[in-house]
Amino acid sequence: MTLSQKNRESQPAQETLIGRRGRLLGAKSQLFYDEPVHLVRGEGVWLHDADGRKYLDAYNNVAHVGHCHPHVVEALYRQASLLNTHTRYLHTAILDYVERLTATFDASLTTAILTCTGSEANDIALRMAQAASGQMGIIATDATYHGNTTAVSQLSTRMPPVGGRAPYVRLVPAPDSFRHPEAMADGRAFGDAVREAIASLARDGIGLSGMILCPMLANEGFPTLPGGFFDDAISAVREAGGLIISDEVQPGFGRTGSHFWGHQRAGFVPDIVTMGKPMGNGHPVAAVVTTTKILATFRDAFRYFNTFGGNPVSCAVANAVLDVLEDEALVANARDVGAYALDRLRPLADRHAFIGEVRGAGLFFGAELVRDRETREPAPDTAGRVINAMRDRGVLMGKTGIHGNVLKIRPPMPFSRDNADLLIDTLGQVLDEVAGASA
Amino acid sequence: MTLSQKNRESQPAQETLIGRRGRLLGAKSQLFYDEPVHLVRGEGVWLHDADGRKYLDAYNNVAHVGHCHPHVVEALYRQASLLNTHTRYLHTAILDYVERLTATFDASLTTAILTCTGSEANDIALRMAQAASGQMGIIATDATYHGNTTAVSQLSTRMPPVGGRAPYVRLVPAPDSFRHPEAMADGRAFGDAVREAIASLARDGIGLSGMILCPMLANEGFPTLPGGFFDDAISAVREAGGLIISDEVQPGFGRTGSHFWGHQRAGFVPDIVTMGKPMGNGHPVAAVVTTTKILATFRDAFRYFNTFGGNPVSCAVANAVLDVLEDEALVANARDVGAYALDRLRPLADRHAFIGEVRGAGLFFGAELVRDRETREPAPDTAGRVINAMRDRGVLMGKTGIHGNVLKIRPPMPFSRDNADLLIDTLGQVLDEVAGASA
Repeated sequence: MTLSQKNRESQPAQETLIGRRGRLLGAKSQLFYDEPVHLVRGEGVWLHDADGRKYLDAYNNVAHVGHCHPHVVEALYRQASLLNTHTRYLHTAILDYVERLTATFDASLTTAILTCTGSEANDIALRMAQAASGQMGIIATDATYHGNTTAVSQLSTRMPPVGGRAPYVRLVPAPDSFRHPEAMADGRAFGDAVREAIASLARDGIGLSGMILCPMLANEGFPTLPGGFFDDAISAVREAGGLIISDEVQPGFGRTGSHFWGHQRAGFVPDIVTMGKPMGNGHPVAAVVTTTKILATFRDAFRYFNTFGGNPVSCAVANAVLDVLEDEALVANARDVGAYALDRLRPLADRHAFIGEVRGAGLFFGAELVRDRETREPAPDTAGRVINAMRDRGVLMGKTGIHGNVLKIRPPMPFSRDNADLLIDTLGQVLDEVAGASA
Repeated sequence: MTLSQKNRESQPAQETLIGRRGRLLGAKSQLFYDEPVHLVRGEGVWLHDADGRKYLDAYNNVAHVGHCHPHVVEALYRQASLLNTHTRYLHTAILDYVERLTATFDASLTTAILTCTGSEANDIALRMAQAASGQMGIIATDATYHGNTTAVSQLSTRMPPVGGRAPYVRLVPAPDSFRHPEAMADGRAFGDAVREAIASLARDGIGLSGMILCPMLANEGFPTLPGGFFDDAISAVREAGGLIISDEVQPGFGRTGSHFWGHQRAGFVPDIVTMGKPMGNGHPVAAVVTTTKILATFRDAFRYFNTFGGNPVSCAVANAVLDVLEDEALVANARDVGAYALDRLRPLADRHAFIGEVRGAGLFFGAELVRDRETREPAPDTAGRVINAMRDRGVLMGKTGIHGNVLKIRPPMPFSRDNADLLIDTLGQVLDEVAGASA
């Protein structure tokens, strides 16, 4: 019996669960996979479903140091048993953590506000740029995602917001290293698009507050970016008096293997950095890191307090995550295993014409699927078939990108070479299967 | 040696901590009390500082069922050890919780979105009202606070937002039962103010999406509201096609003693309910509860996903909080101890002319301090002196209200009659002291 058959047999119970979920959470509440997974247990890079089936997790960056890591869980338990209150009382946990966190940044970035989610962090970052510049205009790419609050969801293109898009938002075309490699050489085309956005804001009488970007353009499909790619755009923003916000929710905490932060890999120093998902290994903790001056300007302009942000439990957990990253040398592991997996992934592109490009860095990599290598027409349906077939064979991964056709592999950081072998072997089988089905 | 003397002796170490905090979190990061408290341990209604001093907590509603409640901490530990992932996989914890939570509401309110903070919940609620009405206008009171995101902080009057207040916000005068009791009889004056706000929006070509209010007007200074006070305003909003959002962050989960939700006590059924702080006893979990239809409309209009919202750990914790509320009969306790404390508080008003009014419900009560009972001129400085003197004597409480002159007592729900005796006895001494000092 294959996993797929077994899954179909257990469907009645699962349909009831999906029905119940639709009733309580809304029918359009999103689930992964054609046959959603009912998870009950996690450990390291493994997840287990209600039927006792085991999945290799090649997707979840939230469980950054591995699902239910005992060092993190013990820190959570210890502090939750002792005290969990807010930052209007003095406590050392938040100070110890912010000191340790900011030590990983450029010397200019020394202060932080802790929040619960990356969305809250980006919501603050936009206001910091507005307060520091005294202007409202904000630039992002046209294939990005920076979170779910009203303000930051203005930057998403998936759905136009009720009431229309705010007049101070300008979205520039996301770079596409596969379809437009000629525009990638020096980042000038991207810089020109940013300059045009600044001019467009000016024509509407709107000054520039800044530009927000994920330095690996993760949601844009993590195109291959040459060193210094953003320099021209950053110069344009700074010349116009704007600030640079680096959204590190995806590349941060060492995911790319070569650097602890994505902007370090990309070779620039931002004015404001935001981070979220991996920071607490699943516990809701996130942050904005910036300069003393920008923080002071923000605090003068907005009276900000976050009840749960930076509470002793969140800080104990976030600190334990840094412990594990260091103790288990997980950034070096991301570099090693990521390179190993990419090397094993590339030959699959030689075998299958529908793989347009294999790319990524550290433990964030994947492949762009196309209908035709010449036309480079995206194949989002093929990507959907692949991830569903992988799920059926016990490997969880996703898809992303401007066209929704990029396989997205972004496992917990303790992902090993053995795990990579299982991932790539399974992917090889699935790609053969998909190639056979469409042949 | 009094507590106050001991505190001064330990100041050098504390000044260093405050300096370090200013450097890392910003000098304007808010702290409670002239001499901030450095807390290290909590248990039930008690908090302990780094010098081993013990404080009665008469302020913190976040630790709703008591600091570090073992049943809640065990639930947190058990689930964090087992699995902590997100709602794009199936899991029963969120379904069990939402079923149990919505059972406490009117039969029309059957669905929920779980978030991490009350701010996120209110940020969604505003968009739900916009999606359901197809309009943007929103009404709140002019002395309210609904959270810290860009969108909901538009409703706060403390500081005008950078870029100006959004054109679709209208703030109506908060009722003041002490200074304008004549306007409280039937809520008509409040209803008329809401009608005027709707007309003002219409004059500017802006349709009404709804009104958001805390049904006990907690931040407005929890004025005494006769039953049905909001009925006229609610009729006006509904006649104009708007929705009613009840922000239950403060009155919710039984705080007022008589009802589980503030809107039930106030006698109306909202379209959307938000909740936060007490829901997870300090763990970042919050929610929006609404009708099936409104949720579906929202999900059609906005693609919403919250990474940490409703994860298995958050739901296990929130469920454990409901267990404790039931097992320890804490709503009945709030009713009993709140009434007992109010009865003991009232005679203090006979003794001190600077107490203008004693009021509240359940375990949310306090007193309005004035310079003069005839003129009813607010005395925020006196309120500040009282809460600082209480802190020096080992009781933590706060102040709030339109004029910042209302003593705010809002302890964890297991607060006992003995705790109330200690609170009121200490308050009696402090009020005598403050009266002597100003005599």
